[in-house]
Amino acid sequence: MKDLTKGKVFLIGAGPGDPDLLTLKAVKALNTADVVVYDRLVSPEIMALVPKGTRRIDVGKQPKCHKVPQEGINALLIDLAAKGLCVARLKGGDPLIFGRGSEEAEELRLAGIAHEYVPGITSAQGAATSTGVPLTHRGLATGVRYVTGHRAKDATLDLDWPSLASEDTTLVVYMGAMNIADIAEKLRKNGLPGTLPVMAIASATTPREKRLVATLNTIAEEMAASDLSAPVLFIIGHVVSLYGEAAAAQPFPDRVAAYA
Amino acid sequence: MKDLTKGKVFLIGAGPGDPDLLTLKAVKALNTADVVVYDRLVSPEIMALVPKGTRRIDVGKQPKCHKVPQEGINALLIDLAAKGLCVARLKGGDPLIFGRGSEEAEELRLAGIAHEYVPGITSAQGAATSTGVPLTHRGLATGVRYVTGHRAKDATLDLDWPSLASEDTTLVVYMGAMNIADIAEKLRKNGLPGTLPVMAIASATTPREKRLVATLNTIAEEMAASDLSAPVLFIIGHVVSLYGEAAAAQPFPDRVAAYA
Repeated sequence: MKDLTKGKVFLIGAGPGDPDLLTLKAVKALNTADVVVYDRLVSPEIMALVPKGTRRIDVGKQPKCHKVPQEGINALLIDLAAKGLCVARLKGGDPLIFGRGSEEAEELRLAGIAHEYVPGITSAQGAATSTGVPLTHRGLATGVRYVTGHRAKDATLDLDWPSLASEDTTLVVYMGAMNIADIAEKLRKNGLPGTLPVMAIASATTPREKRLVATLNTIAEEMAASDLSAPVLFIIGHVVSLYGEAAAAQPFPDRVAAYA
Repeated sequence: MKDLTKGKVFLIGAGPGDPDLLTLKAVKALNTADVVVYDRLVSPEIMALVPKGTRRIDVGKQPKCHKVPQEGINALLIDLAAKGLCVARLKGGDPLIFGRGSEEAEELRLAGIAHEYVPGITSAQGAATSTGVPLTHRGLATGVRYVTGHRAKDATLDLDWPSLASEDTTLVVYMGAMNIADIAEKLRKNGLPGTLPVMAIASATTPREKRLVATLNTIAEEMAASDLSAPVLFIIGHVVSLYGEAAAAQPFPDRVAAYA
């Protein structure tokens, strides 16, 4: 009979991509794990930190082509931990912000499997520190908000647009590249000025980072003409006006292609 | 003459308090710094990681009693770096979310001082992982929003209340303990149900962590009767309904006093 008491799952945020942005706790969990179960948003630079002898299982979800459905991932985690293994479940960003970490945790809890969360730097924070664009700034943004711009197949993008169109809050849109024209139009219709600056960042904090600075009026057209590929994050708000001078002061400008 | 080209300032997020939640990059910067300039929100557990020989300067701001005004901190950072020193400017949470990191960076830029951001886990993320309450969860919250509940002396709390009262978004209020009665009332008046669950968390992820679970109707009264002391964070939204079962599954329940 399986011994459910020995195994454990760490639900770990791998951060935006730069391995230096892992927490100490994440590194410790990776070093003690018997097996690493990872997503497509976990960068190759981070996977290179996993000890050589550790088993790796790729459950990365490609858009429109789910490699392993969520139920399969849940069952896999339970099965591995039930064998008494220490499992590092590695997710891009933070497990409790768009990471579905709490859904996996719920299944583990119901199965009686010990588990523990390890937070991660969000892509928004990674993008902010690498571009020099703050998420809040006195006089420009009194708060920050994260939403997803992804919709289920054939569904409409069901967001609270009047609430989102709040000019004193920085709006960060995850997974919004496919719907940015719709998003920008709805934000304008609900009162945000078309001249409001928008930054798109692909693969923030990795050697593949690319940026594009536009406005709500022009972002859809600029994105269509650009070579930014997923994962792309949008930062919408007056804080983006600080880009340029702030970015020039940050190191490693040579490793990114700035379109601005 | 001073050599401005040698010194550098790292604007570092120290995270919520647990030293294991520092990033590798933050630890490296701390280990190479000549001097650490730190805030009152940086935990003693994290300061214990600073190498013994490193100079420490406390610029912690107490509420209503600013030890060192912001202009003084800016001048100090410039002065230290202008002496050719490597300065670790350590802030609670993340430097670009309510950390005024971009204000300090602007002064450094104008003074020609090299500087670099290092992101940190926010208190909201720390609170989420230690309590098991996610910041987003399918069916309960499609996004998350951070605001400050602090107002300048004698000023009114000038927030976009109709926008904040969005039931499908998790609302995280920083520095709101003094004004929680006002905040809860305005959110109810703008349409949020009085039964909406609210969690207050003090000193998240430290040995001093305390939690209190209430509703928008009862949070002010419960806070007044509690012994939670600053820094306190409020998580407002349906995700808090997951507290209890989710929390029970997290380790170290003995090190926190749960009021729920």
